[in-house]
Amino acid sequence: MADLDLQRYNVQIDLALEAKELAESGTGSPIPGVTSEVSEENGIKVTQLHVQTEEGSRAINKIQGHYVTLEVPGLRNQDTELQDRVATTFAKYFETFLQRVGIGRTAKVLIVGLGNWNVTPDALGPIVVENVMVTRHFFELMPDQVAPGYRAVSAVAPGVLGTTGIESSEIVQGIVERTHPDVIIAIDALASRTLDRVNTTIQIADTGIHPGSGIGNKRRGLTQEVLGIPVIAIGVPTVVYASTIVNSTIELMRRHFESVNGDTNQILGLINQMNEQERLQLVKEVLNPIGHDLLVTPKEIDQFIEDIGNIIASGLNASLHEAVDTSNVAAYTH
Amino acid sequence: MADLDLQRYNVQIDLALEAKELAESGTGSPIPGVTSEVSEENGIKVTQLHVQTEEGSRAINKIQGHYVTLEVPGLRNQDTELQDRVATTFAKYFETFLQRVGIGRTAKVLIVGLGNWNVTPDALGPIVVENVMVTRHFFELMPDQVAPGYRAVSAVAPGVLGTTGIESSEIVQGIVERTHPDVIIAIDALASRTLDRVNTTIQIADTGIHPGSGIGNKRRGLTQEVLGIPVIAIGVPTVVYASTIVNSTIELMRRHFESVNGDTNQILGLINQMNEQERLQLVKEVLNPIGHDLLVTPKEIDQFIEDIGNIIASGLNASLHEAVDTSNVAAYTH
Amino acid sequence: MADLDLQRYNVQIDLALEAKELAESGTGSPIPGVTSEVSEENGIKVTQLHVQTEEGSRAINKIQGHYVTLEVPGLRNQDTELQDRVATTFAKYFETFLQRVGIGRTAKVLIVGLGNWNVTPDALGPIVVENVMVTRHFFELMPDQVAPGYRAVSAVAPGVLGTTGIESSEIVQGIVERTHPDVIIAIDALASRTLDRVNTTIQIADTGIHPGSGIGNKRRGLTQEVLGIPVIAIGVPTVVYASTIVNSTIELMRRHFESVNGDTNQILGLINQMNEQERLQLVKEVLNPIGHDLLVTPKEIDQFIEDIGNIIASGLNASLHEAVDTSNVAAYTH
Amino acid sequence: MADLDLQRYNVQIDLALEAKELAESGTGSPIPGVTSEVSEENGIKVTQLHVQTEEGSRAINKIQGHYVTLEVPGLRNQDTELQDRVATTFAKYFETFLQRVGIGRTAKVLIVGLGNWNVTPDALGPIVVENVMVTRHFFELMPDQVAPGYRAVSAVAPGVLGTTGIESSEIVQGIVERTHPDVIIAIDALASRTLDRVNTTIQIADTGIHPGSGIGNKRRGLTQEVLGIPVIAIGVPTVVYASTIVNSTIELMRRHFESVNGDTNQILGLINQMNEQERLQLVKEVLNPIGHDLLVTPKEIDQFIEDIGNIIASGLNASLHEAVDTSNVAAYTH
Repeated sequence: MADLDLQRYNVQIDLALEAKELAESGTGSPIPGVTSEVSEENGIKVTQLHVQTEEGSRAINKIQGHYVTLEVPGLRNQDTELQDRVATTFAKYFETFLQRVGIGRTAKVLIVGLGNWNVTPDALGPIVVENVMVTRHFFELMPDQVAPGYRAVSAVAPGVLGTTGIESSEIVQGIVERTHPDVIIAIDALASRTLDRVNTTIQIADTGIHPGSGIGNKRRGLTQEVLGIPVIAIGVPTVVYASTIVNSTIELMRRHFESVNGDTNQILGLINQMNEQERLQLVKEVLNPIGHDLLVTPKEIDQFIEDIGNIIASGLNASLHEAVDTSNVAAYTH
Repeated sequence: MADLDLQRYNVQIDLALEAKELAESGTGSPIPGVTSEVSEENGIKVTQLHVQTEEGSRAINKIQGHYVTLEVPGLRNQDTELQDRVATTFAKYFETFLQRVGIGRTAKVLIVGLGNWNVTPDALGPIVVENVMVTRHFFELMPDQVAPGYRAVSAVAPGVLGTTGIESSEIVQGIVERTHPDVIIAIDALASRTLDRVNTTIQIADTGIHPGSGIGNKRRGLTQEVLGIPVIAIGVPTVVYASTIVNSTIELMRRHFESVNGDTNQILGLINQMNEQERLQLVKEVLNPIGHDLLVTPKEIDQFIEDIGNIIASGLNASLHEAVDTSNVAAYTH
Repeated sequence: MADLDLQRYNVQIDLALEAKELAESGTGSPIPGVTSEVSEENGIKVTQLHVQTEEGSRAINKIQGHYVTLEVPGLRNQDTELQDRVATTFAKYFETFLQRVGIGRTAKVLIVGLGNWNVTPDALGPIVVENVMVTRHFFELMPDQVAPGYRAVSAVAPGVLGTTGIESSEIVQGIVERTHPDVIIAIDALASRTLDRVNTTIQIADTGIHPGSGIGNKRRGLTQEVLGIPVIAIGVPTVVYASTIVNSTIELMRRHFESVNGDTNQILGLINQMNEQERLQLVKEVLNPIGHDLLVTPKEIDQFIEDIGNIIASGLNASLHEAVDTSNVAAYTH
Repeated sequence: MADLDLQRYNVQIDLALEAKELAESGTGSPIPGVTSEVSEENGIKVTQLHVQTEEGSRAINKIQGHYVTLEVPGLRNQDTELQDRVATTFAKYFETFLQRVGIGRTAKVLIVGLGNWNVTPDALGPIVVENVMVTRHFFELMPDQVAPGYRAVSAVAPGVLGTTGIESSEIVQGIVERTHPDVIIAIDALASRTLDRVNTTIQIADTGIHPGSGIGNKRRGLTQEVLGIPVIAIGVPTVVYASTIVNSTIELMRRHFESVNGDTNQILGLINQMNEQERLQLVKEVLNPIGHDLLVTPKEIDQFIEDIGNIIASGLNASLHEAVDTSNVAAYTH
């Protein structure tokens, strides 16, 4: 959501899971080149999704790579024990993810918290940076005295174009060139297609962060191509477009009537025969001219963003340092 | 929105203007017992609405009384000059409003900021209280030395039931009984039916603040009946239900197709033939079970709430104290 | 520190412990009518001080009553485990304290957080209120369904005279008259005589909160006389006067030279022969005219106040509700 | 104060003005190689100080260069009109300062806000960055459409070593290498020798920002040598060491007794015969072992830092862009 632009959201769905669901709902069958496995434990649903081929990538409009998604509807209830469990589960999957993409145990990490301090739903990245444990300076200033089981971790919140006048990717590139990390972990707030995913879902991906294609070659992402090192993206949906709320609700209504054997053509008229994209286009055409198509966020966003920021910071601390125990990750955040 | 409960929003529309529009859209003609006059100047639209009879009150489901609404779509653009103009306009109408409901120039005022500090879209009341000029203690401690042109103003933010364990109205009642103000001005965040009204609309009403009727006789409002003195309510919509976004968008689609002479029955099916309440009911039935029917707020709520809080505080300062010039109200807020 | 006035600090030392130390340093012997016992465990020093007679009260200029003080120098180090231990220790002593002053297990409690949200060193009370568990509304609205082991607790932050125009004690009095609690627990930020006590010391007292005598009969405290129910005060020093920093440093220098058998008269001149009050007077005379005698707070106050606010909220939850386990108090705060 | 270390404050006085006063109080005569001119208008005292020679630099322990200091005791009173006047005066002197050090009207500026968001007295830099107008992205993305009278300004808050793991200077160096500004304006919070200067003084210097020499060659500053472009430093004292409060108070006492023809040797003993450095050493030896020698800040720091951050942001906007009128600078900050 950092350096937000409308076109980005038009052409791209931020969660791979939603993109796959949408594509499948269109064809009614699995997408070739996209595999996934789902597990669920204690109220935490984990989907591992692999976009394996160029064909699969085109079909769901997501870059080839690995995507792990944690869905935890209960996160809305401010249940401290569940939050600890999510942090532990996140740490476990993130550690495995690092190994699978070839990041070793001593690889130096730069954590990049994208987004804007002063816009609550966009503050996830800066909140994680504020709460994560940094150690790089100990390795630089007193390398002999660092206890075993830690690696060099640094963390920056580069701000957003509107308040810095500089692309986040340029700031990060400059820092990478001076500090030579081995891998970047970039945290960003995302837009979701449905309200129930907001602040209850965490996506990990090895694809880096790509800006919308509509902006042209002046905008650059945080990717291995640009930065020369792997970029792992952690994203949490914190906002939804009003138009996608409407559109996905109409879809829900459609399915509801189908499920009770209603004549959906009769009930919903031509609307029923439109595909997802046509219908979204229609909704946007109605809402845009009168300024109704805003990005919205749940009323309780202040608490949600604080909670999920702490979960990610705790999970990162546990997965990045062997000396930090996954059974007690929360204690290492501020 | 303080002491928020779902039922309240089911049965009641917070803005009288929206209630009237909705009722008129149902009947297609003016509502007997409800009069209104509209003026517009410099991007600020002011509607003065009078619910004069019991019949009018029933028709639009709003309590009898005077309602003044300022609508300023441009408030979203962070235009400092427009904000000053809105504060001045608000001050002018609020001053007139006080006179009309019989509040004299030396009447002692208690400003009550309802809502929750820590939930941004619900923090409007506390923000106004924080920024308004209080003078009561000077009148109490050194009455001889208060300059002419000021009146005794006090201000409290009583918190919300969930964090205090006490109804706001009980706290206010206790303070009223000890400090004997002549009138209460209560500021509250409201729910709107459409996103474009969020943070762009201010409603003044002489009706006090009424909780939803569904909650039963255990909940009490801030009204003259309860408190023994007039209660003027200032409300700003800061949230919308997902279901009302969907519902009002479908209505917009319906009108859109009508305006282009489309066969709305063919396009929208049975949906087209439902009335507003039936359709809303349907949307809620689809969204509620899966936790989609949240109250949402625009992504930029932090800045919006700060801006409109300052406008109201400045406007109150100018309208309550003759010595404060309406041409320079902003300087008196912190 | 709520409703702060200079004279209050001139005539009165907020911590009974400091008042006793100061009196003893003057006479060189124990104060008749004042007893104390000290215990220390795991870096937490607990002093139980009883001002038993009118004579003792006059000697140390503190009201007759019980004072329990926890001193924890390590609290500055952001050690999470120590913080949990302090919360548990505080809970234990507070529970005993309640019993000793005759507050039963079902007595209804009103927690009053004095001070100003927007002035960090004065925000302790509001922070505790924000984090403490309130239950009164469950007892009011659904008394049959409250689990055993809880009591009715409510909590308010009445604000300060400068932003409300109303004395805190008037607001509290109004709330007490409407909600009928059995006891008040009032949390307030204090001034200390030395910097090392700031944010490392918690005082519990059964004396209520007394304003400075200098202001005259227009100012009222939070006391049993005023409110009709017992008032337990919890205070934490968060500020020090520049003049008392200077004064206590000179005293430290004096003792330092004495301890190395220096001729303190020669080294410190006449300063050495002044008593504490004379010397403080001298320092104030030098500092006041040029605006140097400010109240100051450590640079890291934001973190300190957050930490100690959470400790007190956790400790209160554990001591007020039998169902809340003192071994796990932190989980019950937000 | 960003990347604060104790040694820095031992060896160096942050304000050139204080360094000069201290040196002169030692010798009782002007310092060769250091010239200064003072003007005062409307409660704003401006001192222009030039350290012209190596000898002068050694004498006052400040780097050769130009220093302009604004002293405004009234800033503590939250007087909006005075704040506007200070912003205008700052803008005027800053504009002249840029010309004198050879920075042209179209030179591209990078504003660097040093310090820590979450530590209020250290948040000045980030607050200025948040409030200043940035334009660089318009020049990059749509150069043809930028109105005349603006220059390219970017702004970053690089964070502090303890939360990023990276030296601020490394981050800035990386950004400079990628974005090629012509000059850096670095804003930092300083330590002062006396409490009255805290939050009432602004220093502009063309010397860049130098870390304390004690840290060794691992620490680097923000200087032309390191970054290859001029670095203008803007500093505001926001903290004082407890020991310097004590030390400067003893000095004030000494002068006080001198002024009334007291026998200072008799009154102050040997203390009177120590020089400033010896006395400070003594005070530190007494305070340090017991943890009393903290950096402190006035209790009202939250409001002060907000006010002076806005003054500097407004002043920078007016001095950097010809199109921004110095008579109305405040409107351009958020």
